[in-house]
Amino acid sequence: MKTVNVGILGLGTVGAGTAETLLKQGPLMEARTGIPLVLKKAADLDLGRDFGFEIPKEILTTDAQEVINDPDIQIVVELIGGTGIAKKLVLDALAAKKSVVTANKALLAEHGTELMAAAEANGVDLFFEAAVAGGIPIIKALREGLVANPITRICGIMNGTCNYILTRMEREGIDFEVVLKEAQELGYAEAEPSLDVDGWDTAHKAVILSQIAFGVPLNLEDVPVDGIRGIDPEDVKNAKELGYRIKLLAMLDQSEKGYSVGVQPVLIPMDHMLSNVHMSFNAVLVDGEVVDETLYYGRGAGRLPTASAVVADIVDAARDLSGDAHARIPLSWNANPAPAWIPPEERLERSYLRLFLKNAPGSLAKVAEKLGSYGISITSLVQHENDEEGGFVPVVIVTHVATVGAIQSALADLAEMPHLVEPRMVRYRLEELNS
Amino acid sequence: MKTVNVGILGLGTVGAGTAETLLKQGPLMEARTGIPLVLKKAADLDLGRDFGFEIPKEILTTDAQEVINDPDIQIVVELIGGTGIAKKLVLDALAAKKSVVTANKALLAEHGTELMAAAEANGVDLFFEAAVAGGIPIIKALREGLVANPITRICGIMNGTCNYILTRMEREGIDFEVVLKEAQELGYAEAEPSLDVDGWDTAHKAVILSQIAFGVPLNLEDVPVDGIRGIDPEDVKNAKELGYRIKLLAMLDQSEKGYSVGVQPVLIPMDHMLSNVHMSFNAVLVDGEVVDETLYYGRGAGRLPTASAVVADIVDAARDLSGDAHARIPLSWNANPAPAWIPPEERLERSYLRLFLKNAPGSLAKVAEKLGSYGISITSLVQHENDEEGGFVPVVIVTHVATVGAIQSALADLAEMPHLVEPRMVRYRLEELNS
Repeated sequence: MKTVNVGILGLGTVGAGTAETLLKQGPLMEARTGIPLVLKKAADLDLGRDFGFEIPKEILTTDAQEVINDPDIQIVVELIGGTGIAKKLVLDALAAKKSVVTANKALLAEHGTELMAAAEANGVDLFFEAAVAGGIPIIKALREGLVANPITRICGIMNGTCNYILTRMEREGIDFEVVLKEAQELGYAEAEPSLDVDGWDTAHKAVILSQIAFGVPLNLEDVPVDGIRGIDPEDVKNAKELGYRIKLLAMLDQSEKGYSVGVQPVLIPMDHMLSNVHMSFNAVLVDGEVVDETLYYGRGAGRLPTASAVVADIVDAARDLSGDAHARIPLSWNANPAPAWIPPEERLERSYLRLFLKNAPGSLAKVAEKLGSYGISITSLVQHENDEEGGFVPVVIVTHVATVGAIQSALADLAEMPHLVEPRMVRYRLEELNS
Repeated sequence: MKTVNVGILGLGTVGAGTAETLLKQGPLMEARTGIPLVLKKAADLDLGRDFGFEIPKEILTTDAQEVINDPDIQIVVELIGGTGIAKKLVLDALAAKKSVVTANKALLAEHGTELMAAAEANGVDLFFEAAVAGGIPIIKALREGLVANPITRICGIMNGTCNYILTRMEREGIDFEVVLKEAQELGYAEAEPSLDVDGWDTAHKAVILSQIAFGVPLNLEDVPVDGIRGIDPEDVKNAKELGYRIKLLAMLDQSEKGYSVGVQPVLIPMDHMLSNVHMSFNAVLVDGEVVDETLYYGRGAGRLPTASAVVADIVDAARDLSGDAHARIPLSWNANPAPAWIPPEERLERSYLRLFLKNAPGSLAKVAEKLGSYGISITSLVQHENDEEGGFVPVVIVTHVATVGAIQSALADLAEMPHLVEPRMVRYRLEELNS
């Protein structure tokens, strides 16, 4: 079969891993697909760095345009990252009628609609499996394996740094800041950790999955995002006592009423598969109306696991090129009718609350009454007798389903009653994850 | 885009579920793929049965050939089952240059090579996602998502009946026969349960996965198969005490030395994801050299979950037809060099043993000595003081890695020493599942 030539832009961690995988697994992939893949050119501004293996000198260049404009190169792989030069180069490659593979979640989340339109206009593929949950073939599962399914829910642990921190907080009972510092020293977390720990990286992935699952574009700005920075080991411990674990989840829900997307720490049952995703692993739970509950698990980051997904996309694009089957899988689709967006405050959620109540008769009754006045009922309550501190005692409350707006209003009211509760209040979503 | 016409052979549980999904999810799938799918004909010998929903009368026929020979029908879906008439009809459909989709694992495991050759010769697709692990898109993951990976291991819980029985045995401490009877009454197990509980259904799936993962054909007869019929609640309890669960696994391993495939009950660590696959759910753990550990979880059977996979295959075939991209994914491939087959007795495994030793000084030392003479060392040993019965006490031994041949020889020697041990001996594989 005819050779397909590939060019890579960016030889950082994932770029070098992709080059290595293309070269090392080339014979295996040719045996499996019948298509010889050739890495023709690879561009990076810094050719002096250690790529972790030997890249043939003659394919290296510092000029990205040399890759894009090489008439032999049919697939351009963008692994530079960010939304600046990467965006321009992807658009240039698409305009030059090259199929493009990228792992760039920020680019897809912020400019996906524009890039997909450009790919469609030029009749080429734009694949991005590695942008969501690293090596796990989740986009392929959603677009192809579950194509017959209205998607009712996606719950994803899609940031390895956060899951690593939460796992260690739970296992060792230590503070967020302590684990973060160690994770930074070990290279598991960035020096500027905000993209990860404040939930934005997960939100990028949620926006990408939302378009694929629900068929409606979504702006990153509309997604409510909470990270793990404020999580207290006390709440991790309380969750455990109640039979739950705290995980940072992207939660995408769809029902007849509409759809919602959010990123937040959520208490999930300890015996659920998602709770047993430890350290830096990722997993995505997908509920489909036909297939019921499914789950996909693996490494969400790392040099080679991410390269596995990038190279799978390259092979898919090469298969389309060999078979002359561009746009075999449409890049975007539009649900008709488009589902309604359920704003955050109207969403129905169960809550885990930790409040500090005045240690006096009737305190609890007043809180219960306040919650009740907003239609919020309590399913369980834990108060340890000897926990008093400065006249206030911590009380853990788990509620039935209520709108987030009702919970927020009730907590705002309570915050105005300093004689009854301290102003510090903790609230997390709690999900049984029943299918 | 041009309509693709589909015909179904067999309207049993999965056939009716497939017809329902095609009709009910047609608009969604057309929005997602751009391809209108039409269910043109559906054949079954018994048109009087309850299909669970309304199939339009005008598409029903009792004549399978009418479906195969309809010039408008491009995709034939075989859901009759078995290896008799189903095989003939699949070959007829392929010869008529129709793409074929089937969920028939026995057919694929026993005649896969012949059927794939026929599909390739006729330039059409032959897809069978639903034949392995029901609704889970595991074949797509292996062939496409993990295409860059030498596969080093696959461990699959791929029979829901067995997993249901083992889950209930563990949770309730009851006998195999009791759960089996209840499962039969509830319709979770067949009246003739051998295909499931003796491991043959799992073995069919293992043979299919072996070809896809390792690129070498495998005869069902060469696969060592043990089922769950003999499992004693005592061993389930002992496993739990040691921190393990017993699961019926298909285990496919590949290293530089060669590859092996087997079906057997295995003790796996309780905190591993695979251990937390409960009741009738399935899961497949796949280790790839590039991606590391991945796992795929969902329903392995059932009317609609299986239909989800069948319809995904229909859509894939329709995409190939629309884009004129037949054989986009080669049906089979040949590893070069082909990996060597490691025969069962040469495989390296850890063992869980339960022996009944003479309650006399030195018994244990003699057993340890016998194991040692075959190079088998003990990692842990449990003996409960007050368990004596007729002069013999049960002892649970966990060993280091040794060849299965060595273990078998040691046990055969011990069986010749009735003054030391009772002839009843239990042995299961034990796997840490480290990646």
